[in-house]
Amino acid sequence: MRLVLAAGTTETALIERISAAGATPALMSQTPPADAEILVYGEPAQSPVTPVSPTGCPTPAAVTRAVRETVGFPVTVLEAGFAEPTAAPTVDLGAAPGGDIRVADPVPDASEVFEAARTVGRAIPDEHILVGETIPGGTTTALGVLRALGEPIAVSSSLPENPIKRKRAVVEEALETSKLGVGDCAGAPLEAVRRVGDPVLAAVAGVTAGALESGTRVRLAGGTQLLAAAAVVRHGEVVADSPLELATTSFVAADQGDALLEAADRLDLELLVTDPGFDRSDHVSMARYCAGEGKEGVGMGGALSLVDGEFGAVRDRLEVVCNRLGIDGGVGDGP
Amino acid sequence: MRLVLAAGTTETALIERISAAGATPALMSQTPPADAEILVYGEPAQSPVTPVSPTGCPTPAAVTRAVRETVGFPVTVLEAGFAEPTAAPTVDLGAAPGGDIRVADPVPDASEVFEAARTVGRAIPDEHILVGETIPGGTTTALGVLRALGEPIAVSSSLPENPIKRKRAVVEEALETSKLGVGDCAGAPLEAVRRVGDPVLAAVAGVTAGALESGTRVRLAGGTQLLAAAAVVRHGEVVADSPLELATTSFVAADQGDALLEAADRLDLELLVTDPGFDRSDHVSMARYCAGEGKEGVGMGGALSLVDGEFGAVRDRLEVVCNRLGIDGGVGDGP
Repeated sequence: MRLVLAAGTTETALIERISAAGATPALMSQTPPADAEILVYGEPAQSPVTPVSPTGCPTPAAVTRAVRETVGFPVTVLEAGFAEPTAAPTVDLGAAPGGDIRVADPVPDASEVFEAARTVGRAIPDEHILVGETIPGGTTTALGVLRALGEPIAVSSSLPENPIKRKRAVVEEALETSKLGVGDCAGAPLEAVRRVGDPVLAAVAGVTAGALESGTRVRLAGGTQLLAAAAVVRHGEVVADSPLELATTSFVAADQGDALLEAADRLDLELLVTDPGFDRSDHVSMARYCAGEGKEGVGMGGALSLVDGEFGAVRDRLEVVCNRLGIDGGVGDGP
Repeated sequence: MRLVLAAGTTETALIERISAAGATPALMSQTPPADAEILVYGEPAQSPVTPVSPTGCPTPAAVTRAVRETVGFPVTVLEAGFAEPTAAPTVDLGAAPGGDIRVADPVPDASEVFEAARTVGRAIPDEHILVGETIPGGTTTALGVLRALGEPIAVSSSLPENPIKRKRAVVEEALETSKLGVGDCAGAPLEAVRRVGDPVLAAVAGVTAGALESGTRVRLAGGTQLLAAAAVVRHGEVVADSPLELATTSFVAADQGDALLEAADRLDLELLVTDPGFDRSDHVSMARYCAGEGKEGVGMGGALSLVDGEFGAVRDRLEVVCNRLGIDGGVGDGP
């Protein structure tokens, strides 16, 4: 099953203490191209950065790549607002990087990006696709869009301690800037993306809508950012009733608990949760995921949903990928 | 082994009776995106065109895809001057479509495209890559570059009757426009590409140079256009002495005879010729290749060089790909 990965940036990631992957301007802008390169080439190519947290938790791209090297699946990367070049092949959606949502009109091209992605979604001939994302700061913009749509759905975090109060404060400020109340964009999802979202949400929703329109089944691959994308699709006019799956990791499920089931129910998503058994490994990368870091991203949960039966081969392969990325295999000390 | 495919356009293809794939403006501009989509998705996606000759000879992309579906290899498409959008993921080299070489300065961005491709070539982490091309009209621009470099090497054609006199006349006119004599660009290969070449030649030469510089082995995948690209590399300063392979089809070898061996020797290329045994099939696609149509392109000879032993599975798969492309399997009537 092809993984379609929407990759981009938002300056929202630069707000203090909001994102691991967006902690510095360099990480914010380099993580999506590096993730795309890891997925395509197995390691960063043109990108000077390997996205690894200070405690040794690798980007979920490493896990998705490990699954790819185990079971094999094709990849199409959608470029939805890069601030840096990449040697990974991408479909150019003509998107600009997203602005800080506390400033007016952070995604002025939301409709154009949605339509460009929709065209690609219609064109992709596969019968069934995974759709994932990589965008530092994306859970905050996801929360903004969910609030603007009036969907009472919480968001997760790539940090073990979710800075949820900080995110809520940012979103409140963003709604205020845009003079939006909760639910004001219900039925006008691209308005929500334009005013408090990010370009990757426009791309994920667009490619999903286009794929569904042309009879391709879609499995959203990820956590709460994909819930926001699903909400954008469900609030739209065209494919609001089409069957739609959400495949995520056990790490997101553990973090969200019943809220995840309720959100999936609310948005009429068939939910698939996959546990890769990282607790059976001492490798630092897997230990960090078990400690609540990373959790999801770069289509990780969707990729894991393609694995039949047991995950020993994926875990072994993840160690190989981590070695290639220069991640020491010892057990991490934690933060 | 990864296939890196440089794809682009030149208005030279629109000159009457010069190219099968460039016979009309629509075919000229749609063939490279369609080829990229066939390679990536197995069929045209966003492109409205399936490149098939009037006699039923499919684009070599169909053969390369059939090999890909048989033995499996990754693909990176370099966008070196598209006139139409594509749903295939590509690395954007910032190239404009090439102009008609009879008009001055048809590839003003030759150096920039070469450098962009060189950066990608350096970045790709693979140990060994194939480098191929798709550009309608490309053998004429190849002849132009070979003449400007002073390399006495002939070019092939995708038509059974090579309109070589026509090509020579076009190249003479181009050299005249640029006030260039034969060999005037020896040692200045990007000047040759800029004044009488096309953007795909700049991309192929650039990615090859960058790959060789970073220790990646390169197998040029194609016919006489790849000879011109090899000449550009050999006339450059950086990797003029690096080992370099050329993998082509038995159809090009049959067409070129000893001239191919001499050209490979002249440019210090290790030559691999692969015969896919299309004469064992009655399928129209393979019959047309045996009749001298198509011959090469889209990395076909390089892809075939990856097949171990016998080619029955590739031929069977080519029939599947042709069915998908809507090509009737009966024996063609010929032109």
